[in-house]
Amino acid sequence: MIDVKSKNIVELEKLAQDIRKRILEVVSAKGGHLSSTLGAVELIIAMHYVFDVEKDPFIFDVSHQAYAHKLLTGRWDEFDTLRQFGGISGYTKPSESKYDYFSAGHSSTSISVAVGAAKAIKLKGEERIPVVLIGDGAMSAGMVYEALNELGFRKYPVVIILNDNEMSIGKPIGALSKYLTRLKAGKLYQGFKEKFKKFLDSAPKDVKYMAKKFEEMFSVHGVFFEEMGLEYIGPIDGHNLEEVIETLEVAKSLKKPVIVHAKTIKGKGYEQAEGYYEHWHGVGPFDLKTGKPLKKSSLSATKVYSETLLELAKEDKNIVGVTAAMPSGTGMKELMKEFPERFWDVGIAEQHAVTSMAPLAKEGFIPFVAIYSTFLQRGYDQIIHDVCLDNYPVRFAIDRAGIVGADGETHQGVFDIGYLRILPNITIFAPRDFETLKKAVRFAKEFNDGPCAFRYPRGAFTLEDEVFDAKDFELGKAEVLIDSDNIMFIAYGNGVGKAYKAHKLLKEQGIDTGVVDLRFVKPFDKELLRSLRAKKWYVISDNAKEGGIAEMLSDFVNSENLDVSIESFEYPDEFIPHGDVESVERLLKVDVQSIVEKIKDQNA
Amino acid sequence: MIDVKSKNIVELEKLAQDIRKRILEVVSAKGGHLSSTLGAVELIIAMHYVFDVEKDPFIFDVSHQAYAHKLLTGRWDEFDTLRQFGGISGYTKPSESKYDYFSAGHSSTSISVAVGAAKAIKLKGEERIPVVLIGDGAMSAGMVYEALNELGFRKYPVVIILNDNEMSIGKPIGALSKYLTRLKAGKLYQGFKEKFKKFLDSAPKDVKYMAKKFEEMFSVHGVFFEEMGLEYIGPIDGHNLEEVIETLEVAKSLKKPVIVHAKTIKGKGYEQAEGYYEHWHGVGPFDLKTGKPLKKSSLSATKVYSETLLELAKEDKNIVGVTAAMPSGTGMKELMKEFPERFWDVGIAEQHAVTSMAPLAKEGFIPFVAIYSTFLQRGYDQIIHDVCLDNYPVRFAIDRAGIVGADGETHQGVFDIGYLRILPNITIFAPRDFETLKKAVRFAKEFNDGPCAFRYPRGAFTLEDEVFDAKDFELGKAEVLIDSDNIMFIAYGNGVGKAYKAHKLLKEQGIDTGVVDLRFVKPFDKELLRSLRAKKWYVISDNAKEGGIAEMLSDFVNSENLDVSIESFEYPDEFIPHGDVESVERLLKVDVQSIVEKIKDQNA
Repeated sequence: MIDVKSKNIVELEKLAQDIRKRILEVVSAKGGHLSSTLGAVELIIAMHYVFDVEKDPFIFDVSHQAYAHKLLTGRWDEFDTLRQFGGISGYTKPSESKYDYFSAGHSSTSISVAVGAAKAIKLKGEERIPVVLIGDGAMSAGMVYEALNELGFRKYPVVIILNDNEMSIGKPIGALSKYLTRLKAGKLYQGFKEKFKKFLDSAPKDVKYMAKKFEEMFSVHGVFFEEMGLEYIGPIDGHNLEEVIETLEVAKSLKKPVIVHAKTIKGKGYEQAEGYYEHWHGVGPFDLKTGKPLKKSSLSATKVYSETLLELAKEDKNIVGVTAAMPSGTGMKELMKEFPERFWDVGIAEQHAVTSMAPLAKEGFIPFVAIYSTFLQRGYDQIIHDVCLDNYPVRFAIDRAGIVGADGETHQGVFDIGYLRILPNITIFAPRDFETLKKAVRFAKEFNDGPCAFRYPRGAFTLEDEVFDAKDFELGKAEVLIDSDNIMFIAYGNGVGKAYKAHKLLKEQGIDTGVVDLRFVKPFDKELLRSLRAKKWYVISDNAKEGGIAEMLSDFVNSENLDVSIESFEYPDEFIPHGDVESVERLLKVDVQSIVEKIKDQNA
Repeated sequence: MIDVKSKNIVELEKLAQDIRKRILEVVSAKGGHLSSTLGAVELIIAMHYVFDVEKDPFIFDVSHQAYAHKLLTGRWDEFDTLRQFGGISGYTKPSESKYDYFSAGHSSTSISVAVGAAKAIKLKGEERIPVVLIGDGAMSAGMVYEALNELGFRKYPVVIILNDNEMSIGKPIGALSKYLTRLKAGKLYQGFKEKFKKFLDSAPKDVKYMAKKFEEMFSVHGVFFEEMGLEYIGPIDGHNLEEVIETLEVAKSLKKPVIVHAKTIKGKGYEQAEGYYEHWHGVGPFDLKTGKPLKKSSLSATKVYSETLLELAKEDKNIVGVTAAMPSGTGMKELMKEFPERFWDVGIAEQHAVTSMAPLAKEGFIPFVAIYSTFLQRGYDQIIHDVCLDNYPVRFAIDRAGIVGADGETHQGVFDIGYLRILPNITIFAPRDFETLKKAVRFAKEFNDGPCAFRYPRGAFTLEDEVFDAKDFELGKAEVLIDSDNIMFIAYGNGVGKAYKAHKLLKEQGIDTGVVDLRFVKPFDKELLRSLRAKKWYVISDNAKEGGIAEMLSDFVNSENLDVSIESFEYPDEFIPHGDVESVERLLKVDVQSIVEKIKDQNA
């Protein structure tokens, strides 16, 4: 623990420098979130100075900006294990430190957490004050508004630091973002304010009072928040420690819900990163001097998706699409650039993203919704109620399916198969490599009979291209890639690569196995499965076992009275920790080596 | 089709009367939504007068207020089949009429639909204008804000009629609701405005301009919406047809996003219903003269839940709870009344409801979240990310599980088992009758090892009390209610009643069957299932078959290599239509009679 409270401003400024140095040192070597965390250093130091981390709930929205908090609370040395397998998390995590009040990884939950904490504090009769650090990008999600609506109504003492760096991960969009910019500029009213002041010195008293109110509204600015029942202070310079500390002291003393609007610069203190929207948000290892990445970026599923859709979008002007604040991450950026009238970023707003595409399908367009598996959970009811119910052909391109690596628990894309396949009307399929991903995008484009979803992993597929020929997708049709009378891998999506590797290793050991690429989870290929001669099936897919493919196939086998035994190498029923995919899969015993060992044991 | 456009004001007022009469006639006889739909009659007539239903998308939020629209668009006569099996839906439904642009049943989707429609219209280069009718209650859901954020930014021409009747289903809560009340009152500024005006007549020109802006802000009121980038007009009298028509004409002509704030009275035109918050929202058949219900309300699962929790809450002050705008529907009203500091209605805001309870669990409280199965879909990501991930003991009391009857497709509670059981850390169980529901609430209260969820049907259970003794719930333990070597019903929750009825009928036919009450879906009782001698299992539960219990058990049977054949009487893979539960279940062939017939055939 670093004793922030005992330091003077000069020492605190020195501390900020040290923290930035440590962050840059570790993130440049190991990768991680950079620009948001650099921008929040002074705000976090001030939080620790003004509030009491031993008792006040410190709530970090998304929490990828909380590295300074980690460094201040006893994690300075182990910080170099950041996001590594077995190392410290890139997010706040109560099981890692008692100073991490709450887990986060998805955006915009912090104010709800603060409201809940405030209720508990009130019931206990305690004096603690929840303090929230939230970025302007997170303010586009409806959940924030739901929480503000209750907070402004019940008036719990909560201090919300709005870290406004004019950017979420992507360029900020939306009316609120424009509004914040207006607040900061304030030029429209500046000249008028002075004139008006002079003029009013002679006015009657009650006019003076109201005019003062008006003036405050524009000098203090936060009408929007005040209409929501919150006090508003700002904007302040979020890098000026003295100003931030003084403001937080005031905010704390009010015993009301307060928004402190702090202007910061993303990437602050690292020249190469300052002022960039997306590039420096999350990075791999890079050269600290040049800012150049240490590894050349290789082809990714995202890029293949993006390029294929772009190609199709050039041919067919009815193709449209949406992303929820992840233009680069989902590859929609290129499409938005080429066709700004047809591809939209709606900000962190998955619910709206999903529902808003349904009328486009209704009106004859061909909408693609590109959202990470884990974030699509936010649009679940909308998928059911606004898309599947009336069978609108909305295409879901589910990026970051399976284990995502360093981001860990909050970001794993392992539930989508389970939560989607239970819905009527939806068609679900997956490519196994880059070439079949191209086919998948084309199939989705052509398929117009209802909603469909296809998923692909972060980065590259396990299976290299050209191991198997890329066949077109045909509704509900699986594909026998390697036949066997003995054992069949029933593989799906990125699982095909693992199945193929296991097949090769087992062959070396004299054990004969085949590989089926299921291709479709819904509807799945009953005919092909019925025709298989192998009576032992091993299911390989990168999703949660509960509600997954093995269960679905067991039901099929049971209802058809087939004499087949099924074993699952899907993921076990637990939240999956961060780390490189290989280490994590080894831990879960679903890596290729573990699969091979187990099958060898069973077939010895 | 009624030709609204050709009528004059007097004729339109007469039409409004006729519509109200027809609504009252049918709803008093058949039941349905009443007060919201009576309140919206003039607004809907004006929509049809000003806009063109043949081309402009008419978008009704939730759409239970759209009866007038149904009556105007060719459904006058068949309106008396309202909400009956095979009859017309209580909601807008494109498959029922081409004048129903979009399906709704869940709240707060309308503005997203309008944004999507506006995008399509713009791309097509057409002149159509989406027009939305949304209630003030729906404005608390975050989704609305996500949509407004994009709409205010991109400025599509969309007319949003905010039907402000000062009530959602329950008493409105939240900062926005207060704000709307302030807008309507406007008293604070009224006196000042006049004084200020006189005073400013002598002021310099630019001061005058700015002062005019200020004045507008308070006379025209809608700062909040204007800050969101929308034009605001209002408040107007939503029952004054002339005023509404004139205002909508203006709004339409602006070619911008506009909020028209209309004040209406819920239940308008039916004296008994005017001014009530909840009672007249949705009703069963009633006597038109007295307003008294024709059937006496019988005991419901909701009531038993509510009474049991209230009893426990009196004993243990750590019990807290939340509902999302359904205080009566979920039985939380009594608790809010008795303990207003510990039970909260957060408005239509399921995301916030779920997440805000997690810190209360963390702080040692015992939170209950009471939400309908279908609406809990809105909080799915929050259940995963904010509750299950860190294993907080939040208790989900899932009301309206299974088939809900007259509300139909949008409201069926059939997916919760599938979408919840795939999540790590959660415990899932269900009572079979009122007595075991009491036990379930007590078990949930005591169970503190992580999140748990229990579900119960709308109204009464199929199984009557005292058929079987009510045993306490024991984690993961099933119960053999009737043993058999031959056939076992593996029943869950409300399915136990059906299984018992089928058992009795089959016994009469000489076919021996037993009944297991599974009690827990997660973790389920492997030991008991292994010990069963019957090799034919019939699964009976009121949830979707996909991802359901039969699949789960097939996987178990397969992995344990048990020689058991499983058949499912869960619900088929389709959206389930409205109507009385019995007729709907017969249609789906999962009513008791169909189950008996099928088993007889198989065991002949």
